[in-house]
Amino acid sequence: MISDLNKIWSDSGKEMKKSAIRELLKLTQRPDILSFAGGLPAPETFPIEQLKEITAEVYDNEGAQALQYGATEGDGKLRKILVERYKNQGLNISIDNLIILTSSQQGLDLVPKIFINRGDKIICGLPSYLGALQSFHNYGAQMVGISLDEHGMRSDLLGQKLEEMKQNGEKPKFVYIIPDFQNPAGITMPEWRRKEIIVLCQKYDVLILEDSPYREIRFEGAPQKTIFELDNANNVILLGTFSKIFVPGFRIGWVIANEAIIDKIVMAKQATDLCTPPFLQKISANYLEKGYFDQNLGNIISIYRKKRDAMLSALSEYMPEGVSWTKPEGGLFLFITLPSHMDAEKLFEIAIKENVAFVLGSVFHCDGSGRNTLRMNFSYMSEEQNKEGVRRLANAVKKLM
Amino acid sequence: MISDLNKIWSDSGKEMKKSAIRELLKLTQRPDILSFAGGLPAPETFPIEQLKEITAEVYDNEGAQALQYGATEGDGKLRKILVERYKNQGLNISIDNLIILTSSQQGLDLVPKIFINRGDKIICGLPSYLGALQSFHNYGAQMVGISLDEHGMRSDLLGQKLEEMKQNGEKPKFVYIIPDFQNPAGITMPEWRRKEIIVLCQKYDVLILEDSPYREIRFEGAPQKTIFELDNANNVILLGTFSKIFVPGFRIGWVIANEAIIDKIVMAKQATDLCTPPFLQKISANYLEKGYFDQNLGNIISIYRKKRDAMLSALSEYMPEGVSWTKPEGGLFLFITLPSHMDAEKLFEIAIKENVAFVLGSVFHCDGSGRNTLRMNFSYMSEEQNKEGVRRLANAVKKLM
Repeated sequence: MISDLNKIWSDSGKEMKKSAIRELLKLTQRPDILSFAGGLPAPETFPIEQLKEITAEVYDNEGAQALQYGATEGDGKLRKILVERYKNQGLNISIDNLIILTSSQQGLDLVPKIFINRGDKIICGLPSYLGALQSFHNYGAQMVGISLDEHGMRSDLLGQKLEEMKQNGEKPKFVYIIPDFQNPAGITMPEWRRKEIIVLCQKYDVLILEDSPYREIRFEGAPQKTIFELDNANNVILLGTFSKIFVPGFRIGWVIANEAIIDKIVMAKQATDLCTPPFLQKISANYLEKGYFDQNLGNIISIYRKKRDAMLSALSEYMPEGVSWTKPEGGLFLFITLPSHMDAEKLFEIAIKENVAFVLGSVFHCDGSGRNTLRMNFSYMSEEQNKEGVRRLANAVKKLM
Repeated sequence: MISDLNKIWSDSGKEMKKSAIRELLKLTQRPDILSFAGGLPAPETFPIEQLKEITAEVYDNEGAQALQYGATEGDGKLRKILVERYKNQGLNISIDNLIILTSSQQGLDLVPKIFINRGDKIICGLPSYLGALQSFHNYGAQMVGISLDEHGMRSDLLGQKLEEMKQNGEKPKFVYIIPDFQNPAGITMPEWRRKEIIVLCQKYDVLILEDSPYREIRFEGAPQKTIFELDNANNVILLGTFSKIFVPGFRIGWVIANEAIIDKIVMAKQATDLCTPPFLQKISANYLEKGYFDQNLGNIISIYRKKRDAMLSALSEYMPEGVSWTKPEGGLFLFITLPSHMDAEKLFEIAIKENVAFVLGSVFHCDGSGRNTLRMNFSYMSEEQNKEGVRRLANAVKKLM
């Protein structure tokens, strides 16, 4: 054994910590526990029979190319189909603005790789997706948190912070925003708020990293334009993924940005995994081309809507006075706020005894705040389990009170 | 457009350059050019029919798990099978010492991530695999090159360098070695040289990063023990991959190391892509379990042996006096050395006109040396093409002379 690894880790390696979620998830794998801690899509939405058919065709018609190395930028057909879809939504992009990634999490690794030096600042919501915070942390980013209101990141506070930083001669490398059905808060940013944030970022000359994995899972209300589309200054990097609207097991995501940024991401990706599995890209391209994607999306939305409704109605029925929660218009998560004197970590201990689990809201807060909050996933468990889980959780809350 | 991206790239992003190989490859995609520049496995080795059968079974028997998120460490069955194979070779490891990666290139990204701070030194062979050099470069590593002889990295020079660094109060983070059928040099390190290097690295308390993608493609001679096995101090990180012995399009690799290092790599991987596609891991596990892997390996070796032989015999037949080349006992590449006054870049220009392409040896040299060398891949083209390509190359050499 080498004398002391602790002396030779990089700064990044030294500071890496096991994900709080992962460690908690281990606790919650007892079969008697109803766990709402993960973020898994419902397996009943996986189109296994269609995939079987398409996969056999890929082997037959393009097996040799599918099993070979592919271009770092991604499969030409898949990129083209995705670009067309975004253009139909209103985005002004070409194929050179989009590359395929091995999961959108890879985008959360490569974007900081090309922008962040240790000690650089970035701005994120309080709360924000944990996997993004972990990656930014691994690059040594100093995270500046901005609170959300019911419309997402507060533009007044963002403006104050950007001005304050400017006075100090500082500038964040980017503002990280999850505008649609935010993870973990379940909040969606309306167009006027998106525009306020764009105006601020243009004024202070700061990039926006728009992470939108849940965008297409909308239960009600009108779709919001992406920040990428609303911005006309090429100031936005947009991440997308199939994980929640097709299958997560293929790990297919993508990034859309101006060509100069895409060029750097391609170079960074090359040294990271050379290319995303061409086999899975070809299956995905054919799944879209055959119309299965659009055929199935409605069904996925309807399944998740029912599951959300089950959880929301149970919350109304069982939760004691003083507890509030978000009512997401889409996505996979809702966020519960306990009375301010209560501690979700203490609730967790009681909840485990009641055979129900969740994620502490504090892990999504880069400043460690949010100790009275928790995240519940409603996509994985059945409607009945969502109800029963909330009943157990409400019991735990009452016991803690 | 944001005012000036050049002001906001990270140091890493600023320095990223397009891969010389990739740019050259674009030149060589004309259909009339025989290109030996890439490193592609032969598509005729891809077991498409067997994969079709196994894939259908995976959909039928474990579709929901295969298409869901999986553990960051990898699929339990695949890890177990790989660990058993290595144990049968003599490695003293358990499942906690091996995790699955999205390509072994991902190991070349995550290992520097946990060990390298900008400005740290690492040691590599002159020449070494370009994809590794690029990744080390992206982390800001200063690369110290050590020449190879016919037995691989020279231990005398390595010892001198380590001592010199020690005198200066320096220590490299690791020594990067490709011991089997080295890319690009086609050289294999005998056991005694491996042991010399292990002794040196133990003396100076330095890790070894052993990258062995070609190990199982041996045409003749006895397999060499891995450096990991020969070292009994847990000083070695070993990278493996299916890309050259199964299919590259699945992007499945793995890393073997002591548990403390594996723990950090898991944490780094989590923020990078969460997990490697479980679908492809399950197909791979079943391919191994059914015995197809062992059944097919002999055939792959025999195909590549014939292709190597075709290239070697053409080199003997056509190359003028003064040109030498390695005779690899396995792998995918051989390395040609021109007379020292000749420049492979000039040869490349003539070669393109002769409709043949290769990679400049200098791109594999971290110090820019090796200007009179070039790499030839013999795995992708047919035997006939290998012969014809060498004939054209020899013509180009004669013209340059």
